[in-house]
Amino acid sequence: MINQRVPKIWYGGDYNPEQWDKATMEEDLRMFELAGVDVATLNVFSWAKTQRDEHSYDFTWLDEIMDRLAEEGVHVCLATSTGAHPAWMAKKYPDILRVDYDGRKRKFGGRHNSCPNSPTYRKYSALMARKLAERYKDHPALVIWHVSNEYGGYCYCDNCESQFRIWLKERYGTLDKLNAAWNTGFWGHTLYEWDEIVVPNALSEEFGGNRTFFQGISLDYRRFQSDSLLACYRLERDELKKITPDMPVTTNLMGFYPELDYFEWAKHMDVVSWDNYPAIDTPVSFTAMSHNLMRGLKSGQPFMLMEQTPSVQNWSPYNSAKRPGVMRLWSYQAVAHGADTVMFFQLRRSVGACEKFHGALIEHVGHEHTRVFRECAELGAELQQLGDQLLGSRSNAKVAIMYDWENRWALELSSGPSKALNYVDEVHKYYDALYQLNIQTDIIGVEEDLGKYDVMVAPVMYMVKPGVARRVEQFVSRGGTFVTTFFSGIVNENDLVTLGGHPGELRHVMGIWAEEIDALLPGQHNQIEWNQEWGSLRGSYPCGLLCDVIHAETAEVLAGYGSDFYKGTPVVTRNRFGEGLAYYVASSPDSKFLQGFLANLCEEQGVKPLLNTPTGVEVTERVKDGGSYLFVLNHNAEEMTFDAGSAKLFDLLSNRQVSGHVTIPGRDVMILKRSAAQS
Amino acid sequence: MINQRVPKIWYGGDYNPEQWDKATMEEDLRMFELAGVDVATLNVFSWAKTQRDEHSYDFTWLDEIMDRLAEEGVHVCLATSTGAHPAWMAKKYPDILRVDYDGRKRKFGGRHNSCPNSPTYRKYSALMARKLAERYKDHPALVIWHVSNEYGGYCYCDNCESQFRIWLKERYGTLDKLNAAWNTGFWGHTLYEWDEIVVPNALSEEFGGNRTFFQGISLDYRRFQSDSLLACYRLERDELKKITPDMPVTTNLMGFYPELDYFEWAKHMDVVSWDNYPAIDTPVSFTAMSHNLMRGLKSGQPFMLMEQTPSVQNWSPYNSAKRPGVMRLWSYQAVAHGADTVMFFQLRRSVGACEKFHGALIEHVGHEHTRVFRECAELGAELQQLGDQLLGSRSNAKVAIMYDWENRWALELSSGPSKALNYVDEVHKYYDALYQLNIQTDIIGVEEDLGKYDVMVAPVMYMVKPGVARRVEQFVSRGGTFVTTFFSGIVNENDLVTLGGHPGELRHVMGIWAEEIDALLPGQHNQIEWNQEWGSLRGSYPCGLLCDVIHAETAEVLAGYGSDFYKGTPVVTRNRFGEGLAYYVASSPDSKFLQGFLANLCEEQGVKPLLNTPTGVEVTERVKDGGSYLFVLNHNAEEMTFDAGSAKLFDLLSNRQVSGHVTIPGRDVMILKRSAAQS
Amino acid sequence: MINQRVPKIWYGGDYNPEQWDKATMEEDLRMFELAGVDVATLNVFSWAKTQRDEHSYDFTWLDEIMDRLAEEGVHVCLATSTGAHPAWMAKKYPDILRVDYDGRKRKFGGRHNSCPNSPTYRKYSALMARKLAERYKDHPALVIWHVSNEYGGYCYCDNCESQFRIWLKERYGTLDKLNAAWNTGFWGHTLYEWDEIVVPNALSEEFGGNRTFFQGISLDYRRFQSDSLLACYRLERDELKKITPDMPVTTNLMGFYPELDYFEWAKHMDVVSWDNYPAIDTPVSFTAMSHNLMRGLKSGQPFMLMEQTPSVQNWSPYNSAKRPGVMRLWSYQAVAHGADTVMFFQLRRSVGACEKFHGALIEHVGHEHTRVFRECAELGAELQQLGDQLLGSRSNAKVAIMYDWENRWALELSSGPSKALNYVDEVHKYYDALYQLNIQTDIIGVEEDLGKYDVMVAPVMYMVKPGVARRVEQFVSRGGTFVTTFFSGIVNENDLVTLGGHPGELRHVMGIWAEEIDALLPGQHNQIEWNQEWGSLRGSYPCGLLCDVIHAETAEVLAGYGSDFYKGTPVVTRNRFGEGLAYYVASSPDSKFLQGFLANLCEEQGVKPLLNTPTGVEVTERVKDGGSYLFVLNHNAEEMTFDAGSAKLFDLLSNRQVSGHVTIPGRDVMILKRSAAQS
Repeated sequence: MINQRVPKIWYGGDYNPEQWDKATMEEDLRMFELAGVDVATLNVFSWAKTQRDEHSYDFTWLDEIMDRLAEEGVHVCLATSTGAHPAWMAKKYPDILRVDYDGRKRKFGGRHNSCPNSPTYRKYSALMARKLAERYKDHPALVIWHVSNEYGGYCYCDNCESQFRIWLKERYGTLDKLNAAWNTGFWGHTLYEWDEIVVPNALSEEFGGNRTFFQGISLDYRRFQSDSLLACYRLERDELKKITPDMPVTTNLMGFYPELDYFEWAKHMDVVSWDNYPAIDTPVSFTAMSHNLMRGLKSGQPFMLMEQTPSVQNWSPYNSAKRPGVMRLWSYQAVAHGADTVMFFQLRRSVGACEKFHGALIEHVGHEHTRVFRECAELGAELQQLGDQLLGSRSNAKVAIMYDWENRWALELSSGPSKALNYVDEVHKYYDALYQLNIQTDIIGVEEDLGKYDVMVAPVMYMVKPGVARRVEQFVSRGGTFVTTFFSGIVNENDLVTLGGHPGELRHVMGIWAEEIDALLPGQHNQIEWNQEWGSLRGSYPCGLLCDVIHAETAEVLAGYGSDFYKGTPVVTRNRFGEGLAYYVASSPDSKFLQGFLANLCEEQGVKPLLNTPTGVEVTERVKDGGSYLFVLNHNAEEMTFDAGSAKLFDLLSNRQVSGHVTIPGRDVMILKRSAAQS
Repeated sequence: MINQRVPKIWYGGDYNPEQWDKATMEEDLRMFELAGVDVATLNVFSWAKTQRDEHSYDFTWLDEIMDRLAEEGVHVCLATSTGAHPAWMAKKYPDILRVDYDGRKRKFGGRHNSCPNSPTYRKYSALMARKLAERYKDHPALVIWHVSNEYGGYCYCDNCESQFRIWLKERYGTLDKLNAAWNTGFWGHTLYEWDEIVVPNALSEEFGGNRTFFQGISLDYRRFQSDSLLACYRLERDELKKITPDMPVTTNLMGFYPELDYFEWAKHMDVVSWDNYPAIDTPVSFTAMSHNLMRGLKSGQPFMLMEQTPSVQNWSPYNSAKRPGVMRLWSYQAVAHGADTVMFFQLRRSVGACEKFHGALIEHVGHEHTRVFRECAELGAELQQLGDQLLGSRSNAKVAIMYDWENRWALELSSGPSKALNYVDEVHKYYDALYQLNIQTDIIGVEEDLGKYDVMVAPVMYMVKPGVARRVEQFVSRGGTFVTTFFSGIVNENDLVTLGGHPGELRHVMGIWAEEIDALLPGQHNQIEWNQEWGSLRGSYPCGLLCDVIHAETAEVLAGYGSDFYKGTPVVTRNRFGEGLAYYVASSPDSKFLQGFLANLCEEQGVKPLLNTPTGVEVTERVKDGGSYLFVLNHNAEEMTFDAGSAKLFDLLSNRQVSGHVTIPGRDVMILKRSAAQS
Repeated sequence: MINQRVPKIWYGGDYNPEQWDKATMEEDLRMFELAGVDVATLNVFSWAKTQRDEHSYDFTWLDEIMDRLAEEGVHVCLATSTGAHPAWMAKKYPDILRVDYDGRKRKFGGRHNSCPNSPTYRKYSALMARKLAERYKDHPALVIWHVSNEYGGYCYCDNCESQFRIWLKERYGTLDKLNAAWNTGFWGHTLYEWDEIVVPNALSEEFGGNRTFFQGISLDYRRFQSDSLLACYRLERDELKKITPDMPVTTNLMGFYPELDYFEWAKHMDVVSWDNYPAIDTPVSFTAMSHNLMRGLKSGQPFMLMEQTPSVQNWSPYNSAKRPGVMRLWSYQAVAHGADTVMFFQLRRSVGACEKFHGALIEHVGHEHTRVFRECAELGAELQQLGDQLLGSRSNAKVAIMYDWENRWALELSSGPSKALNYVDEVHKYYDALYQLNIQTDIIGVEEDLGKYDVMVAPVMYMVKPGVARRVEQFVSRGGTFVTTFFSGIVNENDLVTLGGHPGELRHVMGIWAEEIDALLPGQHNQIEWNQEWGSLRGSYPCGLLCDVIHAETAEVLAGYGSDFYKGTPVVTRNRFGEGLAYYVASSPDSKFLQGFLANLCEEQGVKPLLNTPTGVEVTERVKDGGSYLFVLNHNAEEMTFDAGSAKLFDLLSNRQVSGHVTIPGRDVMILKRSAAQS
């Protein structure tokens, strides 16, 4: 449980009463009560309000709000306000301003605008955290610390350049090692002094945002910037922990956000929280996968849904309203995947500036007689009724997909073989197939304990970091099923090619050699020719993007290519390795193949679907104290029917028992409890 | 009449004989005579030629040209040459160079390149105006002053930054008021000192040209830059007026050019002039609307067509020749909409640099035996024949569309609800429907006297400036018909939301509440279900872009949505308010609906089409001294027939009477005079 | 012969053993032997390795490699390593770093990164060349000098600005002449002092990379930058020649690379070499044309294929493998068009940085058991077998196409008439038609001796440089056939329009006047109506892009336009001029028309196809000592049959005689020798 003070699924969101008058706040409190709001996130962007110069801090406005919320039984997720620095600070201490990718020194503006290596930023942000902790350490409303906000963006200033050199010295020790790691001999970039190193951006080694002449330096700069921002977080976290060691600390993450290695970050967070803003055309399985990634950051520990919109966004190209029922459906989807909170951005819509058209619990009209408010209030009531029974329950998945930010960076920075290769899309392809099968799947990092799982999928495992290949071998040899794909095992952690034949460190366990990698044009396809029967698999399936031309060494060939000069050569192979099996999929198949293929692998391992449901009806499970909670989410607008099996299940939301053929209305949700004894 | 010295529709254009030798000029004069040219615009880009350092001015070259033109009876529209500064000035006084949106200090180059807050520019441009006025105040050729050229572009330099702070102090008085107006509390941008304010561009609050984090500062910067350039114009104008108080002063505008608030500018111009460059695919109704906007800047006063091309442009992607007859047709279109001049860019084609492939009266071949010259000469002869009878005639429209630059800026800067929303397109949709109906329509600013009109349309009236809602209420209560649309009445002049329910200040007169605003994806549609009969309206019409979900309060529901979760809720409403009617159109309909809808509204008010004509045959009217001139313009390549009615009308161009069924050749024009007694 | 030391078609490529250990090099040598490699290009990017500060040079690593290669009979193409400067040099002497188009000073990174007007670069690059020449002048492995690498890119720094002014003073002498050449009177850019001139880039006269306000300055800046880089090349070349006057010197060019005027460059090169990287969708006729351009740079002298990939590239969007046989086929295509070497980038794949996924003879797997290696080794054996018999053979084309870089720059910089106009595409259209006809065609510069040819085509000869029109007139009057097109004869070398009617200086020889130039929209077409019979021509052919509206003066009209207001006016004309004929094609036709049209022209001149072959079977010829080598290249995947005629031809590759109907397998090659007596 995140904090015993709120022993239920938290409900609330971002709240900025300091932007309004007191009468409005009283009206808000009246409506919070109607909506069942019990947690408000305060102080996210109030640094300038609190601190008007180096020496003057004024928290009285925050005292009043905290006290008033406490009186009304609303708890506080207290932000440290360091997500945007004050204008006076930028004016007086320009080191706090970033230099952008194009080498331009920025002026004051925006948010997430502080250089992470700015002495000014580090000094005053840590001081702010300390002052907040000192002042509110005993406040009855406080339930969690929220450090800064949505960390992100890179800086390329001279301070960063100096710190980058220090960071590199720590990483490599000598320039010889650095020259080797970056392969500087290529194009004659040999470095003789540390201060010859410059930041890689559009003025030096990079171009187009994600393209580089030297993958080594660019990879390291991503690591360094992720670390620099993390160092800022840790500075504040440490200040908070000194004074309130038992109060949980988080910062809100952003799912598959590309710039930060959240697996590193999560090590320093008590609880993961994140902001879920699916676009209008985001597949629901992508949202599901994102939740599982956030859950996987801390090995399955429940997380916080820190932000979602009650209805519209403002920053999408087309900001459609969430249709009736969708806000509730997606809120429960978060819970189904491990969230122990449901929170909004925001509780009252702002009157001006760029987010005034972002939805809120309390709209511009200012009263509760809106569709959006009504739906929020109904959900608030349900969450109160659910109480604490789901809190702390976890996934029990036997299947996992590996995802790694450093691998992603390396793939995005790669020059060749195909610009169409998108790592996250390939990960999602595999996740989506398992999702459609109702097979519970974790998303994990490469350091996770693999022993928990029966089936492990690592799509496009291009970069194999130290020790990972050995751990994969152990996993397989002890009976696990491992799947990887084309363009895997290519490089080490410095993006240097593992010589001697792809897939490099994975070659032993996969039992194949990939001689060539062929890139297909958009719309061009080859075929997976599946000639034996295995489950539902049979016949020809299209594949594309990249085609590894491989040789089976110890592996068995399951299917061959259907065309081109490598027609008939292996495209899917299986290698027996110890007690387990290692599958290689040498191209990028369609969803139909993957569902058939993964269903078979799971079946081999005795991993079965949670339920069989029609398309669009998602099923997931949380378990706790031996009991199971099956979440059934109907993403269709129409009612659907599924077979819940013969056991009696109790729907926590409708308070009734169900079994056999069950009908679920369009966009409705069930939480079917199966007691420990039953399962 | 612009100037009694040329008592006819002026005919001529930009002329740069100083770029050629004298023999060429003599040849030009010979051809001007053949073409009927009587006005030449001189000195547009000759600053560097005239002034080679701070102290040396040489006007002798201009004296010669002016004298020679006067001898040949060609009058002069005399430009002040300050549209591009000399290279030496940029070298010596870099403050004259702009800083661009990306924060880059520019070097010498291009045109429209002077910082409007540059002390150097202000000093020397005003001085140049004074010297020109002193020298040519009594010159017989002079008929009008043409200040600078096509003002435009913004600057972001330190001088602009300082002046912006002063401008803001004047506007807001205190930082508290400014903080409130910009809602700086959002994202903690509270300002404690004036000099914390920085210009909003890609280095601070803006990105992508028209996107911003803080609409307040960005709106104000547009106002400030429009005012800064206007101040430059006014400085020159004042110098000219001191010496030649009776000589008219203009500067050439550019129709719907986005960056300047021409309604403010027109207050300081004696006559509006503009440059009309329709693209090959510009709808003719858009050109018509642009003319009407230019006419509307000074409440219907005739304007100057300062520039158009005789045939090709050079700066379009594909520079097609104007087909035979089109130059004449579009020239008369300008006159039909209120122009009292027909002028070209340019009279002789330049030999080098970027506009050498822009068409001219005299082509590179250098003689008069070209199609383009022949067509120009025929038009010149016609205009001479027309004499002064049309001069000063005006529109008598009973229908007007409101257009406002500040509203446009605010809409373009808005983050959400849809990137597909284009204010000018929505204005044009309504204009085009009225144009197709042959209903004469003015385009007016929000300060215009509404009492002249029976029907007023204000599409997407997002920003309601002080006093405007009250004036709309008066207009309706006194019997007017008012139409507005979705996403109206949202904000005040600072882009702060009017709380309490949309459409804010317009809610009372519209009698509705807009609860939600739903954005549709491209290609996605809802329907307007029109179930009663009203004129030609009946059945289902597609609508899209945005759908306000509204509640009729005092209004009557005329039609409901056809689908989605707001199916059946109102999409078109009518509110009786005093003696008049206020219509709300909650989504963006197609042209067919709008024609039926607006025809009905006009019919209710007794506003009728000027004539009934086939598609592509435009009709417009100018009136003077009780007489009427009906312009019939056949934009089709083929001949068309229309019913001119039973009255005898006299065609000024063919010198014959017409009535009943009249045939008009392809791309031909008629100017049908109806005397005061007749009408 | 390039160098007597390697009396055969050179075979090898770029080689960087200094990036590897010695054992790897020994392994490489073993495999070179297997592959028949006899030339290795060394030291391309080793500046930083050799020189670690101003005074320390260490060539011992290179000594060892050179010696070891010499021992194994591998010769060396020795690069001077100045294609990328060392990091320490950039740190210490920032003048070596470029300023980019946007005015940004670059930091260290990339390659081709030195300002060509940097004193530091000029000093140390020349010094490096001298030191290399001194050290290796007598080395037995050395066969050619390779200066720098793929020169390219422009700089816009202050040093360039100063040098540009000096360059302009030399070109124009006085500012009056410069003002006239640039037509600075337009937009008032008159210059009074040389130091008012600033470099034309995105901060001054240009925008969008290739768009400008003043074509004159932009053209001159391209000339100046091409000259500046050439000056760098010449500095090194001179140092090399001082010490090794008989050793050939080259630098690797890049086909139709836009930025440098290679015709000027080739004057200073002993042998042209180039890097051939067709994209996956590059037409084979475009590759053929590129080879011919490289051949034409030195009037037909055989050139070096310096780089091609054995299979994949890395920098294309989609890097497909070369299908089996394609590497050999394209290698012979180079030879067929005049190459006397076949060389790869590179011999061993790099382990890290941006080109690690570029193909190589020796792949990452490190052994010879790959498809790519096998194909390379087979080709190596064939080339050894061919010996020296093809060396020095040349084209005997009677047809030539003129191509000119300055014309290209002027066209790309032109504002109007159509953004769809692409000079190289128009040149290729004509080349491709001749290619499809198997008519041998040279690509030549405007200074080439025209007397060698019977038919000369100059597509879009927009810029007519001094003396060229006279030489065209001579060519035609002496019996040649000349073809030019729409938008020709427009400007002189300063991009100033030739007044008095298009096509200006070509008007006399063409016998037409082009009155108007009409631009067509994408997808829009007119027609060439061919009403008499002439060879296969008859009927209606589509044309588009631009349509000159022309008047035949002395010319005969061959075909008229099929539609629009110029329907029936001439679109193709023929003018008898002296003994010859001048054809004007006033629009851009399709390939079918051009094949028919050019076949007829050639037939008139007695120029016949080399052979008749099916589509996709290319034929070209090299001649030497009166003998002929017909290359037959089957670009189809399938086998094809063609008629080789009755004479006995000897296929050098299969070592057999062929005649009559000959079958050639898919992607196969024949080199058919016809002895002097036979032909």
